[in-house]
Amino acid sequence: MSESSTISEASIGRLPLYLRVLAEMLGQGIATASSETLAAATGVQSSLVRRDLAQFGSYGTRGVGYSVTSLQDELQRIVGATRTWRVVLVGAGNLGQALVRHSGLSAETFTVVAIADISPDLVGTQINGITVTHQHDLAATVAATGAELAIIATPAIAAQEVADALIDAGVMSVLNMAPTTLHVPPGVNVRSVDFTQELQILSYHEARRDFLGAPQRNRNDS
Amino acid sequence: MSESSTISEASIGRLPLYLRVLAEMLGQGIATASSETLAAATGVQSSLVRRDLAQFGSYGTRGVGYSVTSLQDELQRIVGATRTWRVVLVGAGNLGQALVRHSGLSAETFTVVAIADISPDLVGTQINGITVTHQHDLAATVAATGAELAIIATPAIAAQEVADALIDAGVMSVLNMAPTTLHVPPGVNVRSVDFTQELQILSYHEARRDFLGAPQRNRNDS
Repeated sequence: MSESSTISEASIGRLPLYLRVLAEMLGQGIATASSETLAAATGVQSSLVRRDLAQFGSYGTRGVGYSVTSLQDELQRIVGATRTWRVVLVGAGNLGQALVRHSGLSAETFTVVAIADISPDLVGTQINGITVTHQHDLAATVAATGAELAIIATPAIAAQEVADALIDAGVMSVLNMAPTTLHVPPGVNVRSVDFTQELQILSYHEARRDFLGAPQRNRNDS
Repeated sequence: MSESSTISEASIGRLPLYLRVLAEMLGQGIATASSETLAAATGVQSSLVRRDLAQFGSYGTRGVGYSVTSLQDELQRIVGATRTWRVVLVGAGNLGQALVRHSGLSAETFTVVAIADISPDLVGTQINGITVTHQHDLAATVAATGAELAIIATPAIAAQEVADALIDAGVMSVLNMAPTTLHVPPGVNVRSVDFTQELQILSYHEARRDFLGAPQRNRNDS
């Protein structure tokens, strides 16, 4: 698929957004969608929607738009959602345990097959039917379970060491939930989720609002 | 601060990254940092680091670099990290409860002051010392606690209604953890965290890897 060398990370990053909106449309019984409809639902400009989807080989029909099911099928194939991805979770504290129980990780596409932690209180116990293994045995755990993707939900200080061990064990895709920047060799993909950073971006805007004296919504205008 | 009208969202989005790296440098006793050092630690190009920091009023000293403490002070002031932001959490399921107990939300900058849910099993109970109120009483909860930022950790189907209620109650900044796109009026800031979307981006790359037959790391080469 020659597309993979030319498609921007930004376009790839919008794929899940399109998939989410398409699923919502299907749930509402919507059969076709124009790029304008997709734009309104995703917040992406309609010209960019058309360019993104064309890059992924979907062009729609002039005057009709895109078939919602066809587009969903095509995009699901492209993101690999037509098969199950085996996920190893490292770090089974509050956040890790919440993730294991989250609907997104018990779905058909992503399934947690292994959980590792360093705490003697957790190793050997079961979480959601999976026995927690020791973080120092990651190579054996990955080999035994065939885990392909990893989620790191350890404290920040442990995250790099865990990432190194995962990569040594052959895992090339890491979702980092630890509040630290991971350094990985070329070819390894890392995505980071840090809600404290997102809160800082919100507080940046709130601080500006206070400073600029922008009109505040009246708390009693509902 | 006229900067706020011209600084791009992308630059603002990198601010927390700089702050995280500066905190790590301080922890390691590093007093000054060049833009190249900051670039290596954050993964941002050094020319972009210089441009970002200049936009925020920090220029460093030629041949020396940036004072880590001064830069941290300046950026913390800009993101509003020099005061405490009151946060209301809506949705106290597994994920919501994990967030309340997360270190990032018990820090000085962000503190959860209110928790709301719709479940009769949760309303009236205490989580981390906070009594859970009913989701239908958000206006009263926000007014009573002075919550400024909100985190939505409800199921997707409830998220828009909750966002509307929060905005009616005067909250202008929302961190959305529900897997759905929120539609909000101008002036309201929404940041979204969706780890399932991040996993889809990783599986996109894994699927390409399989398809292209790119060299796999040997699972036993560690």
